Amino acid sequence: MVGGGRGAFIGAVHRMAAALDGQIELVCGAFSSDPQKSRDSGKDLFLPEERCYPSYQEMIEHEKSLPEGERMDFVSIVTPNYMHFHPAKMALENGFHVVCDKPLAFSMEEAIMLRDLVKETGLEFALTHNYTGYPMIKEARQRIRGGEIGKIRKIVAEYPQGWLATLVEESGQKQASWRTDPSKSGKAGAMGDIGTHAENLLEYVSGLKITEICAQLNILVEGRRLDDDGNMLLRFDNGAVGVLHASQIAVGEENNLNIRIYGETGGFTWRQMEPNTLIYHTNSERKIVRTGVGDLSESAVAHARIPAGHPEGYLEAFANIYRNFALTLRSRVNGEDPDPLYLDYPGVEDGVRGMAFIETVVESSGSDVKWTPFKNY
Amino acid sequence: MVGGGRGAFIGAVHRMAAALDGQIELVCGAFSSDPQKSRDSGKDLFLPEERCYPSYQEMIEHEKSLPEGERMDFVSIVTPNYMHFHPAKMALENGFHVVCDKPLAFSMEEAIMLRDLVKETGLEFALTHNYTGYPMIKEARQRIRGGEIGKIRKIVAEYPQGWLATLVEESGQKQASWRTDPSKSGKAGAMGDIGTHAENLLEYVSGLKITEICAQLNILVEGRRLDDDGNMLLRFDNGAVGVLHASQIAVGEENNLNIRIYGETGGFTWRQMEPNTLIYHTNSERKIVRTGVGDLSESAVAHARIPAGHPEGYLEAFANIYRNFALTLRSRVNGEDPDPLYLDYPGVEDGVRGMAFIETVVESSGSDVKWTPFKNY
Amino acid sequence: MVGGGRGAFIGAVHRMAAALDGQIELVCGAFSSDPQKSRDSGKDLFLPEERCYPSYQEMIEHEKSLPEGERMDFVSIVTPNYMHFHPAKMALENGFHVVCDKPLAFSMEEAIMLRDLVKETGLEFALTHNYTGYPMIKEARQRIRGGEIGKIRKIVAEYPQGWLATLVEESGQKQASWRTDPSKSGKAGAMGDIGTHAENLLEYVSGLKITEICAQLNILVEGRRLDDDGNMLLRFDNGAVGVLHASQIAVGEENNLNIRIYGETGGFTWRQMEPNTLIYHTNSERKIVRTGVGDLSESAVAHARIPAGHPEGYLEAFANIYRNFALTLRSRVNGEDPDPLYLDYPGVEDGVRGMAFIETVVESSGSDVKWTPFKNY
Amino acid sequence: MVGGGRGAFIGAVHRMAAALDGQIELVCGAFSSDPQKSRDSGKDLFLPEERCYPSYQEMIEHEKSLPEGERMDFVSIVTPNYMHFHPAKMALENGFHVVCDKPLAFSMEEAIMLRDLVKETGLEFALTHNYTGYPMIKEARQRIRGGEIGKIRKIVAEYPQGWLATLVEESGQKQASWRTDPSKSGKAGAMGDIGTHAENLLEYVSGLKITEICAQLNILVEGRRLDDDGNMLLRFDNGAVGVLHASQIAVGEENNLNIRIYGETGGFTWRQMEPNTLIYHTNSERKIVRTGVGDLSESAVAHARIPAGHPEGYLEAFANIYRNFALTLRSRVNGEDPDPLYLDYPGVEDGVRGMAFIETVVESSGSDVKWTPFKNY
Repeated sequence: MVGGGRGAFIGAVHRMAAALDGQIELVCGAFSSDPQKSRDSGKDLFLPEERCYPSYQEMIEHEKSLPEGERMDFVSIVTPNYMHFHPAKMALENGFHVVCDKPLAFSMEEAIMLRDLVKETGLEFALTHNYTGYPMIKEARQRIRGGEIGKIRKIVAEYPQGWLATLVEESGQKQASWRTDPSKSGKAGAMGDIGTHAENLLEYVSGLKITEICAQLNILVEGRRLDDDGNMLLRFDNGAVGVLHASQIAVGEENNLNIRIYGETGGFTWRQMEPNTLIYHTNSERKIVRTGVGDLSESAVAHARIPAGHPEGYLEAFANIYRNFALTLRSRVNGEDPDPLYLDYPGVEDGVRGMAFIETVVESSGSDVKWTPFKNY
Repeated sequence: MVGGGRGAFIGAVHRMAAALDGQIELVCGAFSSDPQKSRDSGKDLFLPEERCYPSYQEMIEHEKSLPEGERMDFVSIVTPNYMHFHPAKMALENGFHVVCDKPLAFSMEEAIMLRDLVKETGLEFALTHNYTGYPMIKEARQRIRGGEIGKIRKIVAEYPQGWLATLVEESGQKQASWRTDPSKSGKAGAMGDIGTHAENLLEYVSGLKITEICAQLNILVEGRRLDDDGNMLLRFDNGAVGVLHASQIAVGEENNLNIRIYGETGGFTWRQMEPNTLIYHTNSERKIVRTGVGDLSESAVAHARIPAGHPEGYLEAFANIYRNFALTLRSRVNGEDPDPLYLDYPGVEDGVRGMAFIETVVESSGSDVKWTPFKNY
Repeated sequence: MVGGGRGAFIGAVHRMAAALDGQIELVCGAFSSDPQKSRDSGKDLFLPEERCYPSYQEMIEHEKSLPEGERMDFVSIVTPNYMHFHPAKMALENGFHVVCDKPLAFSMEEAIMLRDLVKETGLEFALTHNYTGYPMIKEARQRIRGGEIGKIRKIVAEYPQGWLATLVEESGQKQASWRTDPSKSGKAGAMGDIGTHAENLLEYVSGLKITEICAQLNILVEGRRLDDDGNMLLRFDNGAVGVLHASQIAVGEENNLNIRIYGETGGFTWRQMEPNTLIYHTNSERKIVRTGVGDLSESAVAHARIPAGHPEGYLEAFANIYRNFALTLRSRVNGEDPDPLYLDYPGVEDGVRGMAFIETVVESSGSDVKWTPFKNY
Repeated sequence: MVGGGRGAFIGAVHRMAAALDGQIELVCGAFSSDPQKSRDSGKDLFLPEERCYPSYQEMIEHEKSLPEGERMDFVSIVTPNYMHFHPAKMALENGFHVVCDKPLAFSMEEAIMLRDLVKETGLEFALTHNYTGYPMIKEARQRIRGGEIGKIRKIVAEYPQGWLATLVEESGQKQASWRTDPSKSGKAGAMGDIGTHAENLLEYVSGLKITEICAQLNILVEGRRLDDDGNMLLRFDNGAVGVLHASQIAVGEENNLNIRIYGETGGFTWRQMEPNTLIYHTNSERKIVRTGVGDLSESAVAHARIPAGHPEGYLEAFANIYRNFALTLRSRVNGEDPDPLYLDYPGVEDGVRGMAFIETVVESSGSDVKWTPFKNY
């Protein structure tokens, strides 16, 4: 693991997600750029001191020198955006598979280089757009693929949060500080941090691609340096239209990612904060589809762990990425074809697309022209 | 009453709304342009045949000739959009107060003429933007006015319906036929029919005015002649931003008008389909404000009729317009100043603003420039 | 109307419910035992002074003396429980149909006498157990009748309110005062006031009859004279079991009547506070049945007024009783058979059963034996 | 681990719960009474073959013979009810701490023996009444302790499930088979399986003790051998009253454990299927208390892992027991006093009380007397 030392948020999430299914064991880490903190963090995690490295470079080099079977199998990168690229690059170059937090990189250039490297090395790369790991998202995707709602006409995706409604970055809140700092977060603030999740979710579940965007990014808290709110109209490759808005100043909102997809004959509504419920609606009926109940797709079943009514949440969805990644690696190790059921996690292409989304939104926001084409890279 | 004969929808709503509080008695009508149908409709309503007129012209003329105290006090106009103007104009010109369904008129020109006439005659004019009649909308408005959520930063208003997801107008469905016909509905379809409700609601409750719009109207069902879907970004006079979308092809949606308002220190969420609940949310607490519970504003109390937990709905909110209108007229008749608590119903200025909204949205939708200024008339 | 003068609660509800559909006109009243208050109340309602009577006796006598077509068609009794019997009796004896608030009477003896009188006179009698007037209750009843959920196995009915969580009767609150006074309310407090609604609802919707009760009534606020809480186990005539609890000290509850019915193959859940939603659930699917959406029973359709998503509430359900009663009377007047669709309102037999429920519950509560047979009268 | 081999349900839950926080490593197991299946199950879990034992006896004996630091630290027992006692007893007698699934034992006698043994040995014993592990349950408990709702007057606890609505045990469904078999489940079916969870929850959160029960257990599916439904009235040691019902034939219900607690001045409502929401309600306000939002008790904070709006579910609540147990053991090992914040998991006394609840309910159900005193052992 790179990053995730004491006091970090997403590192602990990655560790819980990786541990849940008993498929992955944490064996080493460069948890902090401060060697002592890295060691202390590793000690908290019951790691031997010699595998708590002072830097990702030393970690990759030293682990590579260990005999196969002893060395780490892959690297998890849980650092802020501007520190994704270098460790990911070095890991790939040294033959290690990679799990990386989103967005893929700090810039489009970095993203493309990582994609090229993944292709070149043939290694596995997972990007933790965790929200697509929920069973009911799998269910919606399968049903849409199967034609259950007809041609999609309209999509509304929202991602309101409220935690940046004041200038918390000035109070030294660590999560806020780097996210609102252009030198660490990248071109976009809220749109990179959470807007990309909404983009990834809507393309994943709908199977459509955004082709044009009319966006406005806003800084609604005075003194902030990056967008804390953004709203946009969308056009999709099948002619459908959409609305996407994300905010971190939507006071009182926790983590209210949600999506509504309207087709010709039916639609789906899903809210991340009540993730085990998927609503299917036509003009004549309304059904509550639930994790673990009734005749669900093979994919929905494979991404749930416990019976109906035993709520599964964020960590379980996140763990689905790790579980699938681990099963896929194991298949490779065993020389088997990976089961397509589990070869289902966001990868480097999703990361490139997310970065292209940021590029397009930022360009559109600065433009007086209504529609900006989505740039493909 | 003008319009609202057998088979009509909104006419019956107006009659129930007017009857509910025992303040208003239906005394006559020109329910249909077909004299026989007008008589039959009046008979269903227990009206004497001689006051079931074959045309609004005859109704206004004849009623005017009756002695004061016997003749009608005001005219309700419940016809399709293209038939609002002429009866409203004639009623005003003949000294009758008017209640008119929304939108105010077929065109901007008509709207302005009606406004001028209302000013000139000094008569009362109510426009049935009924959704602002709900007690919890009154409550949110009062609290926002009182500064409870600080300066507003963002508003999201939605109005999805699904009933036009197929080309029902071709099957002879009466409500669909005129609404999708540019010669009867006006420049806009869904945006005029329901988008204007969303616009009226958000300006009423927030106290803000839209200053710029970036809109795209869509026809998503092939063969339709007017927009059945529309999405837009908004800017407000205090610097706040917004998103408004309305649709009649959002399959499976009933009448899901809803609004979220985010201020600096708190926000409100309200959904028309669960109208007795208003959610107040800050980053540290979330309260369910309910009709009839706790310490509500005088206005919220005055617009509810029964104790908490006894749900009040659409007809009650609609009736609030009629009740307030009736109490205001009665004050005038009695030579008293109307109680400001009841002098609270949408009027001709709201109608002009709604028509201006339609104008602006249609213009923006046809433009390649991102932002179109909201036109004031 | 008997009762319902200034300051009364349920009288105003009856008037709004009666007025809503334009089928019934209020023509006279004995609104208070105080002649001046009766006159003033009538004046508020725009009634001529001569038909605002100082007592129900004078009202019935004088109205009877009026020519047919001018005199009232029926009497609505909206007084506290202990004043139901005498006006109802006199009205029936003088040939007037009756609408009476629930429970039917102060005592079992009175109830039986009224039943006998209704039979004898052949007059119509409606009891305003208004909660069965909701369209989704009609829907559940029809589907259960049609066998959709198989044999019923278990019913849970709840009616929690919180408004008597303190000794409000001592503060002079009018509604609380008579309801907690054994000389005005009868043998039971909460159980008579709201428990009987739950009993009526569950028998109506399920089609089953309670055969045995194991009940405990409680006074949970010190100083109160009648039960403010009651809980019971039930057995039904088909072998099903049940739980019913009602409370007026369930602090924070508004008017949360709800029912769940579990059959062999499916079940229904309904909550009065969200009355347009009926949930149908089996072990493999969960459907939200909504007023106005999809293929509903003829009865559900006939008891709704406006399209889906336009919430209908308590007053509309209450109005369904008045509307049905009026249509039934009109059929009688016209010499027609009443339409079974509208011959659907609670009557004197429901009232007798409600009184028997109170008798049984009070007896069971005082007994050390577990099960008390439901007494039929 | 004892039990939890291939195909088992709760064993996998225990493993995920134990793994989540990185505090506990699975080192050995007797996963099945079939030695080969035990080995295969262990292999799935990446355990060395020599620590996949053919029986719990061999496991305990062999592990005990290993050097300290190598041998297991505690035993998790995840077998059906009738196989809790013997492995628990042997583990305790050999100096191993124990985590045991609920109910504690097959019979009262076994339960008492285990309690005595725990006292005698001074070892730690955790019983996985997992539902008290939710943060919002901790919050409600703390607030009730702090007097926030005043003296409790009424509690309603429900636990409806629907999965046994048909005779699934005859189809060989493993979970159903042993739960409906008196020789494996004990005196009670549903009441032991899930009723005890409701009992444990309500006593834990309220701080009250049940003193009398009036219960009826039912077999509502023909051919079943143990209760699949049970309903009861309760009395508590402070004078409060209650209702508890649990069912496994409530068709369409998933795992709908919920509780409402009404005090003099406020109440709480919580539903397991939406576990991150706790509703606090008085007669003047209604607040949604949410995991991670606002000013929560230290205990609620300590039992949540991720920020507000990132739903935590069943496994996280279950993991709280394991995490707390592990931290408590670690304190013991380190010679420290355990932190009271984590010394918070159900233990052997809860188990004895759960067994006494079963005894009392079964006795009451067979009795014609209304109230049966809760037996203390």
